[in-house]
Amino acid sequence: MPQVEYQSISPADFFYRNREIAGFSNPSRATYTAVRELIENSMDACEVQQVPAEIFLRISEVPDNRNTETKIYVMRVEDNGTGLPAEHIPQAFGQVFYGSKYELKQARGTFGLGGTMAVLYGQITTHKPVQITSSTGGDIHEFVMNIDIQNNRANILKHTVKQNPSGWRGTAIELQMDGDYSRIMYRLIEYLKQTAMVNPYADITYIGPKGRLYKFERGTEKLPPLPVGVKPHPHGVDVEAFRRLISVTKSKNMKTFMMDNFQGVGNKTAERFLELAQISLKARPKMLSPEDILRIVRSTKEYGNFKRPDASCLSPIGEELMETGIKKELGLTDEDYIKVVTRKPSTYLGYPFIVEAAVATGKNVRKMHGSGITTYRFANRIPLLFDESSGVVWKAANKNINWKTYNVESDTSVVVAVHVCSTKIPYKSVGKEFMADQPEVEKEITNAIREAARGVRGFMSRRFRLAREKRRLNIFNKFLPKIAEFSGRLAEKDTPNIEPLLRVVSTDIHEVEKKLEEVPEIVEES
Amino acid sequence: MPQVEYQSISPADFFYRNREIAGFSNPSRATYTAVRELIENSMDACEVQQVPAEIFLRISEVPDNRNTETKIYVMRVEDNGTGLPAEHIPQAFGQVFYGSKYELKQARGTFGLGGTMAVLYGQITTHKPVQITSSTGGDIHEFVMNIDIQNNRANILKHTVKQNPSGWRGTAIELQMDGDYSRIMYRLIEYLKQTAMVNPYADITYIGPKGRLYKFERGTEKLPPLPVGVKPHPHGVDVEAFRRLISVTKSKNMKTFMMDNFQGVGNKTAERFLELAQISLKARPKMLSPEDILRIVRSTKEYGNFKRPDASCLSPIGEELMETGIKKELGLTDEDYIKVVTRKPSTYLGYPFIVEAAVATGKNVRKMHGSGITTYRFANRIPLLFDESSGVVWKAANKNINWKTYNVESDTSVVVAVHVCSTKIPYKSVGKEFMADQPEVEKEITNAIREAARGVRGFMSRRFRLAREKRRLNIFNKFLPKIAEFSGRLAEKDTPNIEPLLRVVSTDIHEVEKKLEEVPEIVEES
Repeated sequence: MPQVEYQSISPADFFYRNREIAGFSNPSRATYTAVRELIENSMDACEVQQVPAEIFLRISEVPDNRNTETKIYVMRVEDNGTGLPAEHIPQAFGQVFYGSKYELKQARGTFGLGGTMAVLYGQITTHKPVQITSSTGGDIHEFVMNIDIQNNRANILKHTVKQNPSGWRGTAIELQMDGDYSRIMYRLIEYLKQTAMVNPYADITYIGPKGRLYKFERGTEKLPPLPVGVKPHPHGVDVEAFRRLISVTKSKNMKTFMMDNFQGVGNKTAERFLELAQISLKARPKMLSPEDILRIVRSTKEYGNFKRPDASCLSPIGEELMETGIKKELGLTDEDYIKVVTRKPSTYLGYPFIVEAAVATGKNVRKMHGSGITTYRFANRIPLLFDESSGVVWKAANKNINWKTYNVESDTSVVVAVHVCSTKIPYKSVGKEFMADQPEVEKEITNAIREAARGVRGFMSRRFRLAREKRRLNIFNKFLPKIAEFSGRLAEKDTPNIEPLLRVVSTDIHEVEKKLEEVPEIVEES
Repeated sequence: MPQVEYQSISPADFFYRNREIAGFSNPSRATYTAVRELIENSMDACEVQQVPAEIFLRISEVPDNRNTETKIYVMRVEDNGTGLPAEHIPQAFGQVFYGSKYELKQARGTFGLGGTMAVLYGQITTHKPVQITSSTGGDIHEFVMNIDIQNNRANILKHTVKQNPSGWRGTAIELQMDGDYSRIMYRLIEYLKQTAMVNPYADITYIGPKGRLYKFERGTEKLPPLPVGVKPHPHGVDVEAFRRLISVTKSKNMKTFMMDNFQGVGNKTAERFLELAQISLKARPKMLSPEDILRIVRSTKEYGNFKRPDASCLSPIGEELMETGIKKELGLTDEDYIKVVTRKPSTYLGYPFIVEAAVATGKNVRKMHGSGITTYRFANRIPLLFDESSGVVWKAANKNINWKTYNVESDTSVVVAVHVCSTKIPYKSVGKEFMADQPEVEKEITNAIREAARGVRGFMSRRFRLAREKRRLNIFNKFLPKIAEFSGRLAEKDTPNIEPLLRVVSTDIHEVEKKLEEVPEIVEES
């Protein structure tokens, strides 16, 4: 009979063995994932610091005359963010599930996994240590280290402290990895472009393996407001969360406990809620029985009068910044249609979220994307580039919207960009590839696209009529001189000067445009 | 300036916070995932024991007059598997990343996560402990426990040891969870049915919340051969794996090290490979420099003459068992077409895998599934029921195969069932929803379906001709008696006895069928 042996493995060892679920499934995909994880860490660090991000990325090839499909690359990412305190640097990049303390607010990275996975993948494919340089404004600390994967901890090889006369603040990380750049180049540059699109205050410089420079310059210095941590909403709480709150509370009775620990719970709400849960207002939190706790948690789902979740923990891009970013990166002009809509906060499973959608069309859109609906998907300002047709945005834009209502024909190019921000993005994998179709999120996305598309019908009509008008005037331009010449000859006179006539007809263009502007907006289908 | 705080969280805490990535995204999905994780543990335990599985599942509702969408259910799963030694029970169900020792062989569960997640989800939604009873043939141990999520360890509330006069062997687990059965009932029963389909030696009994009994009886006592653990194949090794082998090796030199630690490396291969890697045959493994190790690992990708990976670590279902299972669960008869193909072992990224495919069509298939291609997907004998169109099987069956070549019209019902077994299934998430389209796997799946579909064209032609023939005979049956009667009257004689005539024509049916059997097989398109 075979003997079964048992073992416990560390989180680092788990993700080393199952790296594909964190997005490191093959050399090209790993190259992409490593870059995005490092850049997202940098973007978060800049936002905490409330400075317009300056990100520098360089990927260079290590010369090598071997006959393998993959190459070894040196990857370097620098930022001007808040910097890491020296004592946290080794764990932040050398320990899985170690990260900035979880708060109930929007952030790009929430898994405490991405940066460490990039280091881990580099290590297992090249056997080279990582070099991390960081300062929070004081001394500059430089660590050379690798990961003890079996024990999930950083193994420091060298730690150097340098003076920082210029007061530099930020983080630079440099690692080597075995990758496949050629197969992922297009996506990687697209990722940077889309990152620039929804982070228009960021300046991103990228130098690729062939020495080519890509620059994504910021379009504004304006930053969206920093999200603030909030107390949990009672609707989303479970037994474990409730138990943890009780274990650390200083509240003397359940009424103050409810008011102190949950958002939007005042005097009245606390009283009514506890009555429903059959808990005395004066009950001492630490004396609750397991049954009491269960009854309270189940009652939160039943009690219908809590306030909507507080959305100050969210940081939408905003209509102005999102428009700036999209116009800049898609090269749109004032001749194109673009409308951005930021919806009101909503919730799913107790998590607050906000949907923003942009719809753009026009001749510059046509030039860049061929025809059909092109979707751009963003979650907490991260572009999502893979598994498009599995995601909820694709479903909303292609299945839920009837584009014919908007005068959009199958050969019209339309761009739909959707940004979802939430304390909890409904990702389906640690690799952050696409969002699941939670019904509330899907509905909000669909409504946001509808709202942003409302002006498209009018825009299309105006474009058709303008085109017709221009064709008409072109005919004048073409034939009037000939008619004039012919008439002159016929009358045996000089050709008459048609300039004034043409000018009269031509100035009409503006008149026409002005009139077309006054065409009433089309009312949205309900 | 906001202060960033840092923290480390335990694996249990990570999956508590991100339970959707393990398949526990909402109450109905969690109900489904909990059942499948427990059943898969049980199936694995029975296979290790090499007994035909007997699985008992019961879900009952806890009476409750609350006004919530979800209900509290008691879930109980019992098996006759190998049983857990008492000292491992608490960790096996109370510690994330604790499981049977990882070996290079096929198994359903490899994440060390599923069973514990079911317990964890039950705990955070109901605050109730789990009860686990198990025996490996000696005393029966019963544990009542919960999980200390923050510290990722089991918290034993009660441990009882009982005598076991009947020599019972197996495991029973009973837990409570807040779930939503009504929305997932269909999928859950479908899951059990498909499990029965690819595990035809298993007997599964299920009693649902309304007391209804579902029984999936075994169709055979025959078990597929147990997969055996193998040494790693050199092609799939990375620096970390190599380093670990070196740290525990007793080999004195690199030549014996290569032969001792890798599959398919003999004298000659070891010599040639080490020459390519520029490592002396006599080099001592523990003296290798990091550069040496990197060179060896990179050379494994370059060296083209390793043997194919050993597939004895895999356990395909086999053509006979797979046919038994599908016929049984789809209710097919000998009148239907079914062909099962087990392909030769192949590899992707160094992992061995085998693809098995079944194609079925016929009037009983039509009745059960409407029209179109119905796919069933299995990975290491686990049915995959979600995200069908994202998976590689859907792509292979719908995009890669031109069904018209097989005389399959759009209104013909065809079932395609694909089983992939591997030491590493290319899942895209911990929730085991669908397989990624690794090119080698996709190619094998497509070829397997083609091979199994080869007889479909002939079957369809036979069906058409048989139908025509039957129609013809029906006409005889209908009109011959009338003609006989009419002729009799016309000749003023008794109606002649047409029975012998009809019998002659009718026995033709068998003749026709026999002849149609002799129609040559259609050659597959290349």
